[in-house]
Amino acid sequence: MMASVASAGRAVSGVAARATCGAGSLPVAGLATSAGPQLTVESMNQRVRGAAYAVRGAIVVRAGELEAKIRAGQGSELPFDDIIYCNIGNPQQLGQKPMTFSRQVLALLSCPTLMDDPRAAEIFAPDAIERARKYSAAIGTGGTGAYSHSQGVIGIREDVAAFISERDGFPCDPASLFLTDGASPAVKMMVQSLVAERDRDGLMIPIPQYPLYTASLAVEGGVAIPYFLDEDKGWGTTVEELERAFEEAKAGGKTTPRGLVVINPGNPTGSCMPADTVRDVTQFAADKGLVLMADEVYQENVWRDDTPFTSFKKAACELGLLDPERPNSGAPGPRGSLQLVSMHSVSKGFMGECGRRGGYMELCGFDKEVAMQLYKLASISLCSNIDGQVMVGLMSRPPRKGDASFESWTSERDGILASMRRRAAKLSAAFATMEGVSCAEPEGALYAFPRVELPQRAVEAAAAEGVAPDALYCMRLLEQTGIVVVPGSGFGQREGTFHFRTTILPSEDAIDAVIERMGAFHSAFLAEFK
Amino acid sequence: MMASVASAGRAVSGVAARATCGAGSLPVAGLATSAGPQLTVESMNQRVRGAAYAVRGAIVVRAGELEAKIRAGQGSELPFDDIIYCNIGNPQQLGQKPMTFSRQVLALLSCPTLMDDPRAAEIFAPDAIERARKYSAAIGTGGTGAYSHSQGVIGIREDVAAFISERDGFPCDPASLFLTDGASPAVKMMVQSLVAERDRDGLMIPIPQYPLYTASLAVEGGVAIPYFLDEDKGWGTTVEELERAFEEAKAGGKTTPRGLVVINPGNPTGSCMPADTVRDVTQFAADKGLVLMADEVYQENVWRDDTPFTSFKKAACELGLLDPERPNSGAPGPRGSLQLVSMHSVSKGFMGECGRRGGYMELCGFDKEVAMQLYKLASISLCSNIDGQVMVGLMSRPPRKGDASFESWTSERDGILASMRRRAAKLSAAFATMEGVSCAEPEGALYAFPRVELPQRAVEAAAAEGVAPDALYCMRLLEQTGIVVVPGSGFGQREGTFHFRTTILPSEDAIDAVIERMGAFHSAFLAEFK
Repeated sequence: MMASVASAGRAVSGVAARATCGAGSLPVAGLATSAGPQLTVESMNQRVRGAAYAVRGAIVVRAGELEAKIRAGQGSELPFDDIIYCNIGNPQQLGQKPMTFSRQVLALLSCPTLMDDPRAAEIFAPDAIERARKYSAAIGTGGTGAYSHSQGVIGIREDVAAFISERDGFPCDPASLFLTDGASPAVKMMVQSLVAERDRDGLMIPIPQYPLYTASLAVEGGVAIPYFLDEDKGWGTTVEELERAFEEAKAGGKTTPRGLVVINPGNPTGSCMPADTVRDVTQFAADKGLVLMADEVYQENVWRDDTPFTSFKKAACELGLLDPERPNSGAPGPRGSLQLVSMHSVSKGFMGECGRRGGYMELCGFDKEVAMQLYKLASISLCSNIDGQVMVGLMSRPPRKGDASFESWTSERDGILASMRRRAAKLSAAFATMEGVSCAEPEGALYAFPRVELPQRAVEAAAAEGVAPDALYCMRLLEQTGIVVVPGSGFGQREGTFHFRTTILPSEDAIDAVIERMGAFHSAFLAEFK
Repeated sequence: MMASVASAGRAVSGVAARATCGAGSLPVAGLATSAGPQLTVESMNQRVRGAAYAVRGAIVVRAGELEAKIRAGQGSELPFDDIIYCNIGNPQQLGQKPMTFSRQVLALLSCPTLMDDPRAAEIFAPDAIERARKYSAAIGTGGTGAYSHSQGVIGIREDVAAFISERDGFPCDPASLFLTDGASPAVKMMVQSLVAERDRDGLMIPIPQYPLYTASLAVEGGVAIPYFLDEDKGWGTTVEELERAFEEAKAGGKTTPRGLVVINPGNPTGSCMPADTVRDVTQFAADKGLVLMADEVYQENVWRDDTPFTSFKKAACELGLLDPERPNSGAPGPRGSLQLVSMHSVSKGFMGECGRRGGYMELCGFDKEVAMQLYKLASISLCSNIDGQVMVGLMSRPPRKGDASFESWTSERDGILASMRRRAAKLSAAFATMEGVSCAEPEGALYAFPRVELPQRAVEAAAAEGVAPDALYCMRLLEQTGIVVVPGSGFGQREGTFHFRTTILPSEDAIDAVIERMGAFHSAFLAEFK
């Protein structure tokens, strides 16, 4: 009778099992113990077990242990004083200040009585009070303490829609927007919906990629169809390579490509797609009937003036692949049709409000029935957090000229972006001077992704330890400098090449020291393994 | 070549497809249109399509339409002025005020400079400033704007652990806690991990239940194994019924029960489990080797003094099913072993901070390897939102005697809980006077779940409309009164019985009118269909 449980990984004594089942609620000492625990790594969903997410993998776990040691005062024998987390785009963790205006609005919404408190008028900017009043009215009675509509507060979605239509020159329907806890739940919702048949339905994924995509696919049982970005051309995307990957996936007859993931500006590559590439890729997705999943969370992080951000939605509208009057509807465009999901987040850009978990996705080209299914899926989690939603509204509708906070907003924003640009250049320049390291200068996003030639003896040492060679490099970097980066193998890379991803986010005060420590480590590493 | 795409629900012209694949990136006008969209309700993951979540289903969608009509000034012909959302436990939406102390702490963390601003000292309580300082230090440099550890800020988890060990008299290890965006992600994470084999692995689910459980199971492909609560005994849980459901599920040989979901206090039933039932159920889970998933989010919402809340963890420790010294470890207890996950939330209780999306889960009896897999799963979403985490900390460690906010906290808390208790009693008393309605007085939680005898003609009318009879009743209630409730069919009920769930949350000012409108509607409904 317990046989099917035993098949889930438990060794069950048949006699004990029968005795228990007959014994009703009487305790039968030791039975569960003899049977072993129900949930083990062997008996759990192996798709969960098989998923990898290196951005917070073994190296970060080790960093946490070292940090705990330091905080407990037991770090005196370590060759560094603190852990510097360059593994994740988490700007405020490395000292970036939040935007004053947006935090004032949040504080007022947390304590709504302050909006009418004369003492608060001395502390908060008048337009912050005004915006808090506006969102307070939009949210309704419950304020930030109540669940909202499953897609988010409509008044905030209206601000997002205005931002998108102003950005692209094409309309945006607030009903097509889902406010989400960061961009990650949007990705997971789309992957969950697209993988209808496990081990067959797949998404085309750039290599290197942000591992959220392969992890979500692994958990859902979808197939990752890799297409390679061209490192020699600054990690560019080419339609030829998309064609190759698409055709190869289909040729075997075992995989059905259903969607195409694009990350622009690129994570981890820091590459920015020229407008004509954006158009080519968009057309490719339409031609192949693929859902285009556009990760556009770094759209404010563009470091070169010759590659301004172009949204995939704008390209799709201009190409006639969406109805330019109603691009969010399921209606075809004049020259074809496309299904497009664009994701954005308050975690990146210049706000860097990672802890808020605010983001949105916009649906273009999906019919109402599909949208209703996504609404249901969102409903199961009730709604995204309201402070995160408010932050999305503030990102979408910053103070304007004439508003009291316009000057401070503008100067804070410009200061952060200019500093990021300086640090990106500084970091890649430093990598260029290191032996056996090459690094495209980041055109955008928050990362550098240098390539490192690892000595053969390092590769062998890694094999002996059972880890990837770049993982060995990164673990050594942590142990010797306290700097946490992510090995290229966590993002995917062409075989035989090794990389790591570092954020550009150490503060201007700290970045020289970070570079120096990285350089010294690198020389010592080469010396050790040469 | 496109055959496998066609099998995913698209009608593809083979000629057009070949032409495109050969055409590289050249636009092929209209192809995608002729092929039809990639993602439709037919081609999507049918497990997502098949999931039901009535708490925000068709009736709520209709309520949204009516509300939009009223807000647009077009509601003059409606027989009500406003929509009253009793479909969801969303206290602040219906006017409940947030706890002053916790909102002050949130505001200070949003604008950290206020902690040292002398003007702020006039506005905020000194212990709120002190707590904000404490959490600010615990969170570290990035404050509430940075991603935290994937399981949540350790300093906040320490407050939660202290709360749990004080509540139960047994230790709690902060490393076993995951701070989550409300309780829902915890449920989803556990369901995802437990359903290793689709259409075989199952969870025992109380009927009626909160539909998050069946929805999560449906999406993951797990089997819901219903066990019925005994309506005649105030929706009590009995081990006899658990035995029946377990044995029947196993008897067919097609289902492997892996876990047991319990909701105490009960949602939607409002039932509170006596301590001896908690123990019996705990022992049952251990005997059968089931992971016990304890939804304990209503633990503060107990309306009767003779059924105080008893946690499953406490019961498991007292029964010797967990190691009393290290209940969070995978070590067996002296009299057996159990795997237990307990979930809690800031959305319910007296805080009612639904919009914060704050919650936690505690793991007991799982080994470290399983915990690491759950850590990885949490990492893919990076972390829960920090304001929600802070709110969990405030729930766990309220102001204490001698703190400046102790009096206000206590009187606000007691006022809210006493008022909820009054409203629960009032509502169930009112149902008792309605013809053909019976309702157990809610012992806890935020809901009443009356049973309604529906006339045969109403059942026939519903069949003609293709909806469940209680869905017809609830839709009519909405259309005629503006009151939104959820049909019992959304939670599960014994065949031939009909119920609906309403929250007890309309304010004391409003609840008499709500009751009167419900009563008048009910009489008119009976008259119409008799």
